[in-house]
Amino acid sequence: MISAHSVFTDVQKIRSEAPLVHNITNYVVMNTTANALLSLGASPVMAHAIEEVEEMVAIARALVINIGTLSKHWIDSMVKAAAAAKRRGIPIILDPVGAGATRLRTETAHKLIVEAPPTIIRGNASEIRALYHTEGTTKGVDSTHSSDEALDAARELSRRYNCAVSVSGAVDHIVYGDSVIRIHNGHPLMPKVTGLGCTASALTGAFAAVNSSPLAAAAHAMAVMGIAGELAASKSSGPGTLQLHFYDALYKLQLSDVESHLKVDQ
Amino acid sequence: MISAHSVFTDVQKIRSEAPLVHNITNYVVMNTTANALLSLGASPVMAHAIEEVEEMVAIARALVINIGTLSKHWIDSMVKAAAAAKRRGIPIILDPVGAGATRLRTETAHKLIVEAPPTIIRGNASEIRALYHTEGTTKGVDSTHSSDEALDAARELSRRYNCAVSVSGAVDHIVYGDSVIRIHNGHPLMPKVTGLGCTASALTGAFAAVNSSPLAAAAHAMAVMGIAGELAASKSSGPGTLQLHFYDALYKLQLSDVESHLKVDQ
Amino acid sequence: MISAHSVFTDVQKIRSEAPLVHNITNYVVMNTTANALLSLGASPVMAHAIEEVEEMVAIARALVINIGTLSKHWIDSMVKAAAAAKRRGIPIILDPVGAGATRLRTETAHKLIVEAPPTIIRGNASEIRALYHTEGTTKGVDSTHSSDEALDAARELSRRYNCAVSVSGAVDHIVYGDSVIRIHNGHPLMPKVTGLGCTASALTGAFAAVNSSPLAAAAHAMAVMGIAGELAASKSSGPGTLQLHFYDALYKLQLSDVESHLKVDQ
Repeated sequence: MISAHSVFTDVQKIRSEAPLVHNITNYVVMNTTANALLSLGASPVMAHAIEEVEEMVAIARALVINIGTLSKHWIDSMVKAAAAAKRRGIPIILDPVGAGATRLRTETAHKLIVEAPPTIIRGNASEIRALYHTEGTTKGVDSTHSSDEALDAARELSRRYNCAVSVSGAVDHIVYGDSVIRIHNGHPLMPKVTGLGCTASALTGAFAAVNSSPLAAAAHAMAVMGIAGELAASKSSGPGTLQLHFYDALYKLQLSDVESHLKVDQ
Repeated sequence: MISAHSVFTDVQKIRSEAPLVHNITNYVVMNTTANALLSLGASPVMAHAIEEVEEMVAIARALVINIGTLSKHWIDSMVKAAAAAKRRGIPIILDPVGAGATRLRTETAHKLIVEAPPTIIRGNASEIRALYHTEGTTKGVDSTHSSDEALDAARELSRRYNCAVSVSGAVDHIVYGDSVIRIHNGHPLMPKVTGLGCTASALTGAFAAVNSSPLAAAAHAMAVMGIAGELAASKSSGPGTLQLHFYDALYKLQLSDVESHLKVDQ
Repeated sequence: MISAHSVFTDVQKIRSEAPLVHNITNYVVMNTTANALLSLGASPVMAHAIEEVEEMVAIARALVINIGTLSKHWIDSMVKAAAAAKRRGIPIILDPVGAGATRLRTETAHKLIVEAPPTIIRGNASEIRALYHTEGTTKGVDSTHSSDEALDAARELSRRYNCAVSVSGAVDHIVYGDSVIRIHNGHPLMPKVTGLGCTASALTGAFAAVNSSPLAAAAHAMAVMGIAGELAASKSSGPGTLQLHFYDALYKLQLSDVESHLKVDQ
């Protein structure tokens, strides 16, 4: 059961411990996800060279893998880093960006899931469906499905790979085995900012670093995303100003903000 | 003949159809051009791996190629993607960033123009001149010429390769065969934001996705760039705030904004 | 001896001459460092392909090398570019991001220092210590030491390689041989924005392009960073808005701002 109190306890842990979150992520969001992690209180590092990923994993408290702009040699690094994270027992978050849009993406996501099962998979509805169904249906990197349409796929993936599955959308669905948490926070302007899904995955890494429950960590991250988005939208005139106020909202988030905004079904 | 009405008809088409625009672009602007496309109403995707570019082109409605941070293996992907776009008949926009500054850039731009002729070439005056003249004269990626100094080169390139040529500057010149449209919109602060030229190319892709006239699509894109820049500048205290208000202005653009601001010679 | 007047004289030179600063830098900060250089008045270019770095160096007035997201083939380009810069006699600024966190980073920084000694090394305290001490102690890319703890390492590096060493922190220490300049400007919110250290290195490149004293150029850059940060923080509600106002502050910086804010010990 998550609550405003459980959400904010994790925020405070992140702020006081500043966990190092190792990201192997796409070019589009490297800057923005690093800023979101810093604003939340975590310490981000981006490193993808195969010569150094194991050493970086060795000092990190979570590994976030995001396949948004793949190349062959990056995939090798992802596999190596994930294996090292598995050996060390730190959480792995996988964001299967664009799974379903091309075979390279779908197959890479599957390869990563099988070879080093993630602790949490975080994607939009089209991506989560594509990981479960065989045919590709994703339009680029934006979802063409609502998150509840991906619920069956999320449940099956969770059971098969013993991981939490966090499906973002107008309503976020976070699934772990038979449990489902629905978060109703967020704002319609958020999908107009590139990479906020990737940011959700990065923040999920920070929460997983301080909370050993994959379900709670994933749900806390989505709650904070949605609430910070609502706070930011109230001060914004469009997607440009939203992105900045989003960082400010993460940085200044108070327990009272979470108490007054959190909308959760569980 | 373009008009406020023709500009805004395309904006509305982009907003309602959300065309997928496939970008193979440089590291500097991946985030900002994705945000501009989203703010305008298009759906951006960035994908450069040679294993997936053909599949991504297959679901896209325009391909934008930008050579701003080249590597050898990216060039192979650009050629493959452009050939696939040509076969499918979707528009190709080429941004020859830094052509004239190094042989790699000039030669790559020429190779792309010859092997898979673009629908629209969009560059600054120095770049367009460098594509036509043989000697390199560009200072890095910033223009050292005014756009009318590139007019002869633009005309010749347009005739030789049967494409529109969009030369950005204080006055934008959009050339197609014997036609020239001059757009007098924009603001002096815009060149102080990195990658707004690249953003112009990305938005040109969105307009070309919904308008089959290369001349009109290129001109509509430059008009929207310039008008959004003026609207943003009126709320900004420098280049930092300009960039954000620029996204907001794209997102909120109304027909009345275009009617009151558009300055065009044709 | 630096002064408000000497700082602003260099700012004016950068604004009037717009020196081309060639950056081989990391993916996270390509956009933000380009924007900072443009806001200051310099002309940034990012280029990393081994086929073109020598030509780009040939038209640049400073080379900034930043190892924040390394790959093997980027290292080859860095070495080649640095050698070309050495032959031309233009200043080289090295930012050893994450030195001490992995062997790849520590060894690459050493290789660059030995094979083409930089004019200025700019890093945080943990990175500068890691370049001098043999054991790795850096936590990712954030410093775990104060800048005066790195003073002995900075002095020794400066003597050994005849370069200035600029150690950023709550107080910046700029060292050249026996000289030390301490800059007390800056704001606690600045480390919450990703890549402001990398931005300091990029701006150091612009100052080194117009000032032949490595000590003065490095100190002027840190003074402008700190003062722009203070001006920006006074208008900001968090890290998101800080970043934007920082660009605006660079763009609008006046002599009177430097006179009223500069806090320097020398």
